[in-house]
Amino acid sequence: MANVTPRTLSGFMELLPAQQQQFEKIAEVLRRVYSLYGFTPLDTPIIESSDVLLAKGGGETEKQIYRFQKGDSDLSLRFDLTVPLAKYVAMHYSELSFPFRRFQIGKVYRGERAQRGRFREFYQADIDVIGDGKLSIMNEAEIPSIIYRVFNELGLKRFVIRVNNRKILNGFYALLGLSEKSGDVMRTVDKLDKIGAEKVKAILCEDFGVSEENADDILKFIAIKGTNSEVLGALEAYRGKNETFDLGLDELREVCRYLAAFGVPEENFRVDLTIARGLDYYTGTVYETTMLDYPEIGAICAGGRYDNLAGYYTDKELPGVGVAIGLTRLFFVLDDCGLLNNELNTAPADALVIPMTDDLSAAIECASALRESGVRAQVYFEDKKFKQKITYASKTGIPYAVFLGEDEIKSGTVAVKDLSTGRQETVPAGSAAEYIKAKLGERFTGSIITEG
Amino acid sequence: MANVTPRTLSGFMELLPAQQQQFEKIAEVLRRVYSLYGFTPLDTPIIESSDVLLAKGGGETEKQIYRFQKGDSDLSLRFDLTVPLAKYVAMHYSELSFPFRRFQIGKVYRGERAQRGRFREFYQADIDVIGDGKLSIMNEAEIPSIIYRVFNELGLKRFVIRVNNRKILNGFYALLGLSEKSGDVMRTVDKLDKIGAEKVKAILCEDFGVSEENADDILKFIAIKGTNSEVLGALEAYRGKNETFDLGLDELREVCRYLAAFGVPEENFRVDLTIARGLDYYTGTVYETTMLDYPEIGAICAGGRYDNLAGYYTDKELPGVGVAIGLTRLFFVLDDCGLLNNELNTAPADALVIPMTDDLSAAIECASALRESGVRAQVYFEDKKFKQKITYASKTGIPYAVFLGEDEIKSGTVAVKDLSTGRQETVPAGSAAEYIKAKLGERFTGSIITEG
Repeated sequence: MANVTPRTLSGFMELLPAQQQQFEKIAEVLRRVYSLYGFTPLDTPIIESSDVLLAKGGGETEKQIYRFQKGDSDLSLRFDLTVPLAKYVAMHYSELSFPFRRFQIGKVYRGERAQRGRFREFYQADIDVIGDGKLSIMNEAEIPSIIYRVFNELGLKRFVIRVNNRKILNGFYALLGLSEKSGDVMRTVDKLDKIGAEKVKAILCEDFGVSEENADDILKFIAIKGTNSEVLGALEAYRGKNETFDLGLDELREVCRYLAAFGVPEENFRVDLTIARGLDYYTGTVYETTMLDYPEIGAICAGGRYDNLAGYYTDKELPGVGVAIGLTRLFFVLDDCGLLNNELNTAPADALVIPMTDDLSAAIECASALRESGVRAQVYFEDKKFKQKITYASKTGIPYAVFLGEDEIKSGTVAVKDLSTGRQETVPAGSAAEYIKAKLGERFTGSIITEG
Repeated sequence: MANVTPRTLSGFMELLPAQQQQFEKIAEVLRRVYSLYGFTPLDTPIIESSDVLLAKGGGETEKQIYRFQKGDSDLSLRFDLTVPLAKYVAMHYSELSFPFRRFQIGKVYRGERAQRGRFREFYQADIDVIGDGKLSIMNEAEIPSIIYRVFNELGLKRFVIRVNNRKILNGFYALLGLSEKSGDVMRTVDKLDKIGAEKVKAILCEDFGVSEENADDILKFIAIKGTNSEVLGALEAYRGKNETFDLGLDELREVCRYLAAFGVPEENFRVDLTIARGLDYYTGTVYETTMLDYPEIGAICAGGRYDNLAGYYTDKELPGVGVAIGLTRLFFVLDDCGLLNNELNTAPADALVIPMTDDLSAAIECASALRESGVRAQVYFEDKKFKQKITYASKTGIPYAVFLGEDEIKSGTVAVKDLSTGRQETVPAGSAAEYIKAKLGERFTGSIITEG
């Protein structure tokens, strides 16, 4: 007797089958693209010892951690994939080859306040390149090409990868004598889009004691806009005054220089001096990818260069660069904005084989032959009326029904019905798979994301 | 400064890159085969409300649950994929079409005592077919063909799918007037392989008050051995005395009848009256797949038919049939027994592009072209000695190095070096991808599992 109401926790995404198929298609593109660039898949535990996971401690995140006792152990669920990577690389240092390129697509947990579009369990899809002591700037230059490839393959066109370099910002603030306040200043400047220049200036002066002159310089600096070469040109005006700044500018030039070779179109890449990234550990190039038509969504992919991945676990210097896609949130947003292509095949099978005889052997063998050729096939075994069988195929979205009656069995044929058009054709049993595959290829051609 | 020793919790599998690639290959085969049979992928949360997850309550499992408070919520980590499926189907009943065929490959958690080869976090790979009120016996007949296909594609040959029917057992025990004790009796009989017939008889008589005559009947019954048709023939001797028994025998005959049509070789399928499966909810066909050469490992895939998936959540009758593979344990066992084929390509990339000029554009474009054709390519960007670059490729197992010097760039060629043989060939840049793909195809042909 039913006595518990089945429910899923708020903040936990659970998809219906067709949506799940869409989600899987996206994850598959990420896996494929990451693999093409020579990243190896990793899978680390979801549970870690709290002292290991929270070695870095502090911050907003700690309150959100799922932390609990099990027996004598103080355990926590991972809240990102970066700390587990740091642990992994420090632990397995001598068994790995550097640069170590890994991707990981996995669930992470943050007990955020539940609200629409915010998740407590969500997938992150991370790539990172970790060097041993040193890491070439070229890795920072390559990252935009991977981001571009991912979103391009998903079918997204209207997005921009915004790029900056923390050394430029750090150098600039040092020039103004604001190094110690640079964290506060950058966090304030980060709000420019949301609150406007006037308010930013007010906060800088009143809350952080920045002089009015410096505040104006800051606003002027971050107002530098234009094509990538215009921005780089404008930055040259500051050259020669601070070593860190100059190094950052050189790095940014190098990142921009190879864009064409990396196949990143100019319109999908923008040097943007307002990008700083909140996290303190970024030290070089930083990235934020946004959708042009949905700025309110914020970054759909972000990351940057850091100098010290695993300082809490090892004295080895492990610089790296990486970006992360918040996959669950991205999926939610794409679905919410109506950007997911509903014309793709999200059915559990490509063909529903419907036996029309008492003996089921022929239908079973037909389905086996379809599968041998890569057609996903289900035999409908249930004792239902014919109409209900067809309804089953339609409701689950299975595109083709394959009928096998006495006549077909005798003549070595099958009847294939396209359930979208209702058109039915009789084809030789031996070529049914190729027939269906060709039809599938014609019909399902679109990308996962359609911007309409 | 390093102050925390990086470590992974005991009972949690964390693989090195090459091993992880092997694991991914296995998971990929499961996903592909399950999809070919028309199962749709599902992904449910790892955390559920404790009252939902433990609705069924009781049993050995409850002590092992990872259960904790977060704010006001009493939460638990899932310990299998069946309870989440029951929740899902009950919750989304009106949005699903039946029979509902789903697969799920996901991590589950059990706080077992840590010991070698036992995991607290492990992947299960489940398939289930859920009917609405009724479900054809043909679904039970189809399951062995899916199990066979999975292991066959992995490269395992020496395994047997052992099959029984709970109705036969229940009917038989009813015949002896032992229905109420049948649970205890079956659990005892289950130990036959381990403790022998004498001990089984002693336990039956002494602990459970079974008469000596009945105990002998039981031992005689479960000693029925032979080919599938011999066993079925011997069972006919009991026909006509108990309705449940007769129904079970009809079902078992039906399951065996279509084996050939389903493409399951006789030697991989065995009717075995000792199979009962511990869980109480199986009501029809039950399955246990074992490796012939490693009986001590126990079942590598198991499951069966049940009449009531979600009785705690809904009054709808939801019969089903399913099997699960304990993927993490299977991987551990295969690795431990030396059955994983180490000759496969487990490198992060297929080709390492090594630039020999200061300008890297040509190398970057070469790698892009390789990727366009599906060759996983990494450009080696670091400033190292030539020998170190080659060592990097060898250590990570990357099979081909692609050199691009002034000469190659001028002549539109690339030099491709097979790092296993040391042989180097110069090929036109435009055909490098096809050249490498052909070589990869020749070289990496084996299956994931090799029985040596």
